[in-house]
Amino acid sequence: MRRSIATVSLSGSLAEKLTAIGGAGFDGVEIFENDLVSSAMSPEEVRSRAADLGLGIDLFQPFRDFEAVPPALLARNLRRAEHKFAVMERLGATRLLVCSTVSPESVDDDALAAEQLRLLAERAAAHGVRIAYEALAWGRHVNDYLHAWRIVRMADHPDLGVCLDSFHILSRDVDPYAIETIPAEKIFFLQLADAPALPMDVLYWSRHYRCFPGQGDFDVAGLVAHVLRTGYRGPLSLEVFNDIFRQAASTRTALDAMRSLISLEEAAAGRLGETAAPVRTGLSVPPPPVVPTGFAFAELAAPATGPLGELLTALGFVRTGVHSGKPVELWEQGSARVLLNTGSAESEDGPVLGAIGLESPDPAASVKRAEALLSPVLPRLRGPRDAPLDAVAAPDGTELFFCRTAQPDHPSWTDDFTGSRRDPGEAAGEITHIDHVALTQPWHHFDEASLFYRSVLGLRPHDSLELPDPYGLLRSRAVSTEDGRVRVALNVAYVGAHDGAPDMAWQHVALASEDIVATARRLRAAGTARLAIPANYYDDLEARYDLGEERHRLLRELGLLYDRDEHGEFLHFYTVTSGRVFFEVVQRLGGYRGYGAVNAPIRLAAQHVPPAPRSAGRPERPRPA
Amino acid sequence: MRRSIATVSLSGSLAEKLTAIGGAGFDGVEIFENDLVSSAMSPEEVRSRAADLGLGIDLFQPFRDFEAVPPALLARNLRRAEHKFAVMERLGATRLLVCSTVSPESVDDDALAAEQLRLLAERAAAHGVRIAYEALAWGRHVNDYLHAWRIVRMADHPDLGVCLDSFHILSRDVDPYAIETIPAEKIFFLQLADAPALPMDVLYWSRHYRCFPGQGDFDVAGLVAHVLRTGYRGPLSLEVFNDIFRQAASTRTALDAMRSLISLEEAAAGRLGETAAPVRTGLSVPPPPVVPTGFAFAELAAPATGPLGELLTALGFVRTGVHSGKPVELWEQGSARVLLNTGSAESEDGPVLGAIGLESPDPAASVKRAEALLSPVLPRLRGPRDAPLDAVAAPDGTELFFCRTAQPDHPSWTDDFTGSRRDPGEAAGEITHIDHVALTQPWHHFDEASLFYRSVLGLRPHDSLELPDPYGLLRSRAVSTEDGRVRVALNVAYVGAHDGAPDMAWQHVALASEDIVATARRLRAAGTARLAIPANYYDDLEARYDLGEERHRLLRELGLLYDRDEHGEFLHFYTVTSGRVFFEVVQRLGGYRGYGAVNAPIRLAAQHVPPAPRSAGRPERPRPA
Repeated sequence: MRRSIATVSLSGSLAEKLTAIGGAGFDGVEIFENDLVSSAMSPEEVRSRAADLGLGIDLFQPFRDFEAVPPALLARNLRRAEHKFAVMERLGATRLLVCSTVSPESVDDDALAAEQLRLLAERAAAHGVRIAYEALAWGRHVNDYLHAWRIVRMADHPDLGVCLDSFHILSRDVDPYAIETIPAEKIFFLQLADAPALPMDVLYWSRHYRCFPGQGDFDVAGLVAHVLRTGYRGPLSLEVFNDIFRQAASTRTALDAMRSLISLEEAAAGRLGETAAPVRTGLSVPPPPVVPTGFAFAELAAPATGPLGELLTALGFVRTGVHSGKPVELWEQGSARVLLNTGSAESEDGPVLGAIGLESPDPAASVKRAEALLSPVLPRLRGPRDAPLDAVAAPDGTELFFCRTAQPDHPSWTDDFTGSRRDPGEAAGEITHIDHVALTQPWHHFDEASLFYRSVLGLRPHDSLELPDPYGLLRSRAVSTEDGRVRVALNVAYVGAHDGAPDMAWQHVALASEDIVATARRLRAAGTARLAIPANYYDDLEARYDLGEERHRLLRELGLLYDRDEHGEFLHFYTVTSGRVFFEVVQRLGGYRGYGAVNAPIRLAAQHVPPAPRSAGRPERPRPA
Repeated sequence: MRRSIATVSLSGSLAEKLTAIGGAGFDGVEIFENDLVSSAMSPEEVRSRAADLGLGIDLFQPFRDFEAVPPALLARNLRRAEHKFAVMERLGATRLLVCSTVSPESVDDDALAAEQLRLLAERAAAHGVRIAYEALAWGRHVNDYLHAWRIVRMADHPDLGVCLDSFHILSRDVDPYAIETIPAEKIFFLQLADAPALPMDVLYWSRHYRCFPGQGDFDVAGLVAHVLRTGYRGPLSLEVFNDIFRQAASTRTALDAMRSLISLEEAAAGRLGETAAPVRTGLSVPPPPVVPTGFAFAELAAPATGPLGELLTALGFVRTGVHSGKPVELWEQGSARVLLNTGSAESEDGPVLGAIGLESPDPAASVKRAEALLSPVLPRLRGPRDAPLDAVAAPDGTELFFCRTAQPDHPSWTDDFTGSRRDPGEAAGEITHIDHVALTQPWHHFDEASLFYRSVLGLRPHDSLELPDPYGLLRSRAVSTEDGRVRVALNVAYVGAHDGAPDMAWQHVALASEDIVATARRLRAAGTARLAIPANYYDDLEARYDLGEERHRLLRELGLLYDRDEHGEFLHFYTVTSGRVFFEVVQRLGGYRGYGAVNAPIRLAAQHVPPAPRSAGRPERPRPA
């Protein structure tokens, strides 16, 4: 189907917006009037620039506060419209969006509205323009698409139809099913936006918090399916007002937008039962997602392996191999694998979580999926004897490798690690696997990140949380496979606006232990520093839960944090941060599904406390158990 | 009266918060429980640190979801309370805030709530603790202070009273008048917060957008007056949840908070008719504001006077003096005065608006007022023969000088400018005075700035506007004297989050012309570049207004922007930006009260266009008139 986007969705000058939109492969563009009015480009120049970029001008918008007014005002409004028709002719635009009026001078009279819109359509037709009438969610008299459609039907003019907008329909919880009662030829345009469920006035919500489909909480695909069932085959056009997109780089936002539309078409095809060959609708469907089945490894880039090696040893890991051609060590315990890379560009900045290996049933298909969803595929820099590694870049720059570890049907990346000193079976600890990884996103790419993991990897986004940090707020959203074998926590820090405020781009690897008490004792015995949890936390925990004296004493003694949900319990602790990275050790008891978010503020406060200098620090003494 | 603040209002660790609160001169503090739980300081250490800082612990808060529950849950809740009473004894806190329940396990039964709160108060009394029961605006059964008071009255226990919170009352538009029906001894605590009028769910609004009294739209002073009329003489305590304060430097926020309380006490005293000697209430009242009567000057720091001098000359200004001891030139036209300073620390960065002179009926009293409201008074670096200049620093660092220009009762700063070459009367242009100045604020000090201008100078804040910029949003709020002789536009730019995004800390000086057409022609004749306004703007203006062919042609020819309100019309244009500064020339026709905000997006888009190199640029040709 034809893909379009409104210029208001992107940042920059009109020229920059058009370039970004063309570059992302869109077919058309909605010219948002304010973007044109403030542009030094003439309408003719816009038309020709768009044409050069392969973009049609699918809509000119918005024309406001036209209908259901007294005669004197109608004359003024028609005069205004004639000026806009003239601009549209110069632009080469043939569709004008007319929003339902919000004017206090308008009256609640459908017949009058219909009569005046019919008059507008007649005038428009003389300029080759058609009118798409849209019910704004906050329209004064008309705020429901079926009401707009009744007026259009009453007006009965071939150049007057409706414009449907997913935000205006879904934000008011209007049932989109009745869209199917509108004849396709009277649906002149379809605008698409998603939004997170936020408890606020619909106008304020619309102006600041819209996002691309797949990034919010609306069922946009369901709405598109209703529209397509009418036979509508016009553009699918994104129209997003978002405070963050206004500030982000337009080329990147345009790609994010296109990824959203590709994913949306796939989801709509699914609703229509057309996943295999969507010939009837013309929806295009990318190769299906290949859902990862686990973590193959986490790779830390560091200037030296020493301190991290000590920490991994204390956790019970053993070094099982060294890469045959690069300065990379492989450490293993259970199916948890950590790579220490001292040769990457990021290594010098201290430990950084630079790459994640994901177990894929079909690595090549994983990459094909990622490519179809516009993810940058990374160049494969490998030696002649190295196993193939398929990798793409996540929005925050983390490299994602698709692996089949030690499977007979595929070369294993572990084969490149020779010089093994120890066998994985020698690992002494309780760690079984990587439970999750947590990545801090640039704040203007948070929605992009959740859409990336959802669409490219088929992960399911969980609720977005806000967590207090001593210097701001942390927004956190987990994405995971249904079975929980791959979990990624995406964080964005709105922290520390003032000079000297703490830097916060922390990342972490959470390791699952089958006996966290033993793991904590193991670290204590090795003298390994863990993040100090305040005694006040345990006083509060005892107030909140009655876990029995013995268990409370053990949690306090070992510095373990505790949470529970309706499925089970969660125990966890953290190592101290080195560079940007720390480890978490977790144990899920029963079917606990969360990530201990309730304890994140405790962690954040403790992490902001500057660690006592090592020389002056007291070694942690084991207390009598 | 006793002044207090909740730790949640500030950023940082609990230790940092206490230091900032003590440093700002507060008498007491509310310990927000989460701040204690995440702190490494024990309750005893907190108590002693607070005491060292001269702070009493006025409240421990919040205790949630206690009342109106089934017996088994009551037992758990009482167990939880006992733990908290123990913490409070260690803290030395004797008041506990209990919020009305939001628990789905609670029932709508006032008698049961009263019975259980009475039981809680009995338990509390054994620990020397009193219970302050507060109606949350989003309480499940109790969301109105009078309802909370009915339950407290029903419970009838000496250690149970109400806590009043201005946000919970004013956000729901509950009439605060009935506060006067509550006996003072049953008002255990008073929490104060303001908020901007925002159309959203009250909980979301409360969690993110509270601000200090005087920064929002609530009549907090009126509420305080009602409370004081009961005879309440307990603490006035600020409790603000604000996403920006969470990120800003705590020492600065604490001063902002104290300025708010000082100003609030003054306003409350005014409501009580106690402005002169508020002995009855114990409110303290600072010296009254001295409202400025006009602009004395705007001072630009620049590396050289050449280009600015050319521009001022083109505008019709004449250089009337040079400072006797510093490299500062005085340029005049009408009562508009501009200083060009090539000797300040900021001069090297290119033109910067570093200082503003304000005409004051009593400069010494202006400074006393500013000092009483915690504004930094600037050191007076002046030569032995210089006139005294009283100055304070505004929140963004702009220096504000209080002047009496050429008045017989006071030395005039203009006397320091000797070496005059020209007489002000020689100025040839149409500029009469400075209409307004516009200052860009650091984004985490915007609310502080509006409170500063309101409280220190007695200016009136106007509505807060959001204006689209090609790379983000601009928030803008004007403050002015009632007569409009002093107007300041405060802007904050949420712009350009991505690498390479434009820097935006623009400032400008708007000069009033009595014939803007003549001024525009004067600049054109001098070959002075003005900001180019797109032809599309004029096409749109013609669509929006029918001003007559001749007038439209003139606006377009001269690049003038146009606006109107119900009082009159506004014509304006801009010079190109140099350094951080540009000039605007404005003409108000009739009683137009605004600032042409509708045209700001046009300006912003034009300002982001890189200027054509001067050599390659075409000189502006006068078109045939």
